[in-house]
Amino acid sequence: MSDYKSIAARKQQHLESLIPTEWRLDSSQIPPGMLSPADSVTNVSSYESVNVTDIPRTCGLLSPNELRITEEYDVRSLLTEIHSKRLTSEEVVRAFCKRAAIAQQLTRCLTEPLFTQAIAQARTLDAHLQRTNKPFGPLHGLPVSIKDTFQVTSTDASSGYVALAFHPSSKNSDLVTLLHSLGAIIIAKTNVPQTVGALDSVNNLFGRTLNPLNRRLTVGGSTGGEAALLALRGSMVGFGTDIGGSVRIPPMCVGIYGFKPSVGRVPYGGQQEVGNVGVGRVSLQAVAGLIARSVQDLGAVMREIVPRAELFGEDCIPGTWGEVGNLTGKGGRLRVGVLRKDGLVEPHPPIARVLDEVAQILRRTPGVEVVEVPVPKALAKCQWLANKLLGVDGAGAIMDLIEKVNEPLIPWLKGRMRRGKVSTIADLGKLQAQRAEIEREMLRMWTLEGEGGDRSLHIDAIIHPVAPHPVPEPDRYNGVGYTSSWVLMDYPAGVVPVRKFGEDDLELGKEMSAPVKGSWDKANRALWNESTVDRRVYLDSPLSVQVITPKLHDYELYRAMQISDGAIRAGSKETAKL
Amino acid sequence: MSDYKSIAARKQQHLESLIPTEWRLDSSQIPPGMLSPADSVTNVSSYESVNVTDIPRTCGLLSPNELRITEEYDVRSLLTEIHSKRLTSEEVVRAFCKRAAIAQQLTRCLTEPLFTQAIAQARTLDAHLQRTNKPFGPLHGLPVSIKDTFQVTSTDASSGYVALAFHPSSKNSDLVTLLHSLGAIIIAKTNVPQTVGALDSVNNLFGRTLNPLNRRLTVGGSTGGEAALLALRGSMVGFGTDIGGSVRIPPMCVGIYGFKPSVGRVPYGGQQEVGNVGVGRVSLQAVAGLIARSVQDLGAVMREIVPRAELFGEDCIPGTWGEVGNLTGKGGRLRVGVLRKDGLVEPHPPIARVLDEVAQILRRTPGVEVVEVPVPKALAKCQWLANKLLGVDGAGAIMDLIEKVNEPLIPWLKGRMRRGKVSTIADLGKLQAQRAEIEREMLRMWTLEGEGGDRSLHIDAIIHPVAPHPVPEPDRYNGVGYTSSWVLMDYPAGVVPVRKFGEDDLELGKEMSAPVKGSWDKANRALWNESTVDRRVYLDSPLSVQVITPKLHDYELYRAMQISDGAIRAGSKETAKL
Repeated sequence: MSDYKSIAARKQQHLESLIPTEWRLDSSQIPPGMLSPADSVTNVSSYESVNVTDIPRTCGLLSPNELRITEEYDVRSLLTEIHSKRLTSEEVVRAFCKRAAIAQQLTRCLTEPLFTQAIAQARTLDAHLQRTNKPFGPLHGLPVSIKDTFQVTSTDASSGYVALAFHPSSKNSDLVTLLHSLGAIIIAKTNVPQTVGALDSVNNLFGRTLNPLNRRLTVGGSTGGEAALLALRGSMVGFGTDIGGSVRIPPMCVGIYGFKPSVGRVPYGGQQEVGNVGVGRVSLQAVAGLIARSVQDLGAVMREIVPRAELFGEDCIPGTWGEVGNLTGKGGRLRVGVLRKDGLVEPHPPIARVLDEVAQILRRTPGVEVVEVPVPKALAKCQWLANKLLGVDGAGAIMDLIEKVNEPLIPWLKGRMRRGKVSTIADLGKLQAQRAEIEREMLRMWTLEGEGGDRSLHIDAIIHPVAPHPVPEPDRYNGVGYTSSWVLMDYPAGVVPVRKFGEDDLELGKEMSAPVKGSWDKANRALWNESTVDRRVYLDSPLSVQVITPKLHDYELYRAMQISDGAIRAGSKETAKL
Repeated sequence: MSDYKSIAARKQQHLESLIPTEWRLDSSQIPPGMLSPADSVTNVSSYESVNVTDIPRTCGLLSPNELRITEEYDVRSLLTEIHSKRLTSEEVVRAFCKRAAIAQQLTRCLTEPLFTQAIAQARTLDAHLQRTNKPFGPLHGLPVSIKDTFQVTSTDASSGYVALAFHPSSKNSDLVTLLHSLGAIIIAKTNVPQTVGALDSVNNLFGRTLNPLNRRLTVGGSTGGEAALLALRGSMVGFGTDIGGSVRIPPMCVGIYGFKPSVGRVPYGGQQEVGNVGVGRVSLQAVAGLIARSVQDLGAVMREIVPRAELFGEDCIPGTWGEVGNLTGKGGRLRVGVLRKDGLVEPHPPIARVLDEVAQILRRTPGVEVVEVPVPKALAKCQWLANKLLGVDGAGAIMDLIEKVNEPLIPWLKGRMRRGKVSTIADLGKLQAQRAEIEREMLRMWTLEGEGGDRSLHIDAIIHPVAPHPVPEPDRYNGVGYTSSWVLMDYPAGVVPVRKFGEDDLELGKEMSAPVKGSWDKANRALWNESTVDRRVYLDSPLSVQVITPKLHDYELYRAMQISDGAIRAGSKETAKL
């Protein structure tokens, strides 16, 4: 049996060797208390509340031009600069690689820096543009990053398992092939939790990815490396996967934007597979999604991916980007439903409040109509069913891989992850039949039955909490049902940041009054009750909302996020003026 | 244990009681040799070659007006007559009910006549139109029919099982609800094979549905009742389901049109479920589809269903009808690929010839380009994999239901249907992973990889045989891979009739020369070799082609069928002139 510690040490050494000496921070520039990767797995209580987001700007490693490149553009304006030859791909990619290296030193967000390959690819693109005067593809020169679970030829896809280190991939994931064809440049792969099935991005191979806003709070998971990297502007757009909330929870934790499409919009195929292949297709299908710093950036990339997805992924379907059907509100307005809770776990007061604030802002927004959505009874069954579907295959293959190198379970998985009973096909069928029943009930949330039985869409989008609690401390995440339900339903869902958690949100000395509904709800109270948490830890953390549309209404989700985001930004300016 | 014969006798009596005396044919009007339902199950060799398609016109039961109503309109022109009040819904529905009753007496195509309800519904619609001057819905007054497996409240959905007789449904299938909301009127439910998993529509409850063109040939299955009814003009449009070819094989057998959409276009939910519920969702998903007498009729109905499907079926997705992307041929022409075989079973000479004739006709058609498509290796694996997926659940529940009333298996299922091993979820996952691999390989048939790895669609549609043999004698169907592969791939696929099997196609005295490839191919030769078949039985039977497009390109399939059909009709006129 190999020793997991020695593999991990070798892997960390290898990772460090890929960061050029001239891109290294001085130890004095790294805030104190950065634990070793091994210590970071368990010893989280010793982290201080430190915000490192200014360090890339202040550390002196980035030139004024590199700061400008990494800070002053969104996807479209950066592409314009490159395609019009005002910036070369090489200088852009080099700036982002350097900044990603800095991000790595501050948060341990990377698993596989691809700096050398990325810069070489950028040179090739520059030469192509010089020669042909045409960009190689619509995303020519765009520096992007991807979650470790995607495969890139000759690079590990260890996916949080020590046993998978030093087993380089022999192929590219379909999304990687598609990104290459568009001219995007993958500058790094990013960290995930052990098993990819946890909500903190921590494993025994790379240690724990830290939240750049506040080390005392989790960065979330499973696409946590991306969130840290994007928040520090070390990449323009990040690609992750989501089966429980993995491209929505991390952006919530760092106050940026996440987009979980419906199945079929972004190629998912060619992931590192652990366990019995093909089971995802018959149980709960994970989906590839995006993390970015603005809704516009999400759209700038989705518009190139969605129409090509069917050509690159056998798991994808034809799609267009840019056509929205008739809006359902009076006079062609966007009608937004407010779905305040899931019927299972009561949101903390600031979560309920921020949702209400967004509803109020939307009510005042021209072209928008807001309606209350009663909590469908079926919604309370979703979290249970999603968990059951995730567990149909037992966890034998996962546990085998963990035990192969004798690595311990990360704290959040202890007591949650064990070898389970393998279901029969009849059991699986029953679960899927229950799912169909829930889908039918949930459909009624969106539709209106007219005279004669004709039906129409009644609501364009709903707003909903991302979690029933604020960004929690590490290893305390407890509200996955608020995100996993939309994977079960295959509704596209995105995250929009709203504002920071303020002094008023603390409500010190006041506990939640609603009666406890069950074990999930009880666990959630522990993140609010003063006997079990120091609420001040949430101060300044980002509060977000989730926006959701019906199945395969992905462009409509983008538009609803854009409208909500615009209203929120305008609303907060208004508030600031008061 | 109940006696299946007594249940069947009661059920047949009940069915007969629903046909008004004044709609009954004189026994002299029914061609001789119509066996009793029980005898029709096994004793097929005594059928004579009789074409009954003229009898509804000549029998005298239909008035000149009823003949005009049932013979002179397509869907759009009939709807125009009703909506402009030149015809009442009642007279239209009554005429079709009467003609359906005649069809039943000639072919045993019905399971549940819904004449009384249909006429009552027509009266309600007439009153609505009188009162509001607006049609109730876009298909206001259209007489349609559905396969027995769909559920209609208070009506049996026995689905070919004696044990399910006299167990009326307590709900409507989603498609039924949708059709009601559109104003369509369901006039009858139609016959299927025992277990719905065979390719002749024969069972111990209702007996065998006969092919109205020729009783010595099969009517096909599993939507065989619809095909017989539509061919005799006893309904305007038929709805069926397809998992192996069930809405394509029956129209091939009677020379009309079938359309198997992609999953998600037409609500399938609410079928009579036999066996473990929900297993279809994780193995091979059956799909609802249409049978009609013209491509235009298919389109006239699909355009109303597809945009509403997501509102009525939790298994459906948003869709539009009427937008086609850029065609892939030079100068915006439709590029049609000719896929001559499946790599597993060699088509009989007339099948190969008719496909080639259509290719030649399309080559001469303005706006169309024709290319040869090499047979993808993956295609030869499809039939095996589709069968494996169909069998993952064993057949325990099906066999239980059959044994419950001690009914024997129908001839085609003897030796094919047995209690099988139930697969594990790991096995099922492996099959789905193999399916994904085949999907990836098949994707290459459609796409072209350009410079820089960008991809585009290269072919708009392919033409392919519906089966490797002509319409066979009863209980001898042997080429389901030619249709089931497109369910495995979830490609939409339709059937277009081309011409009749002629004297030249007989090639008497000449056997097929290609070496036999395997057991399926060998079985197929038995339908051609003169030692095992009298080829003259195929004379005058319809020969058809299948048209196929990529996944979810359903409107494109409709357009490709329309163009092909137009070219074939024009081509045969041309030939006729020569």
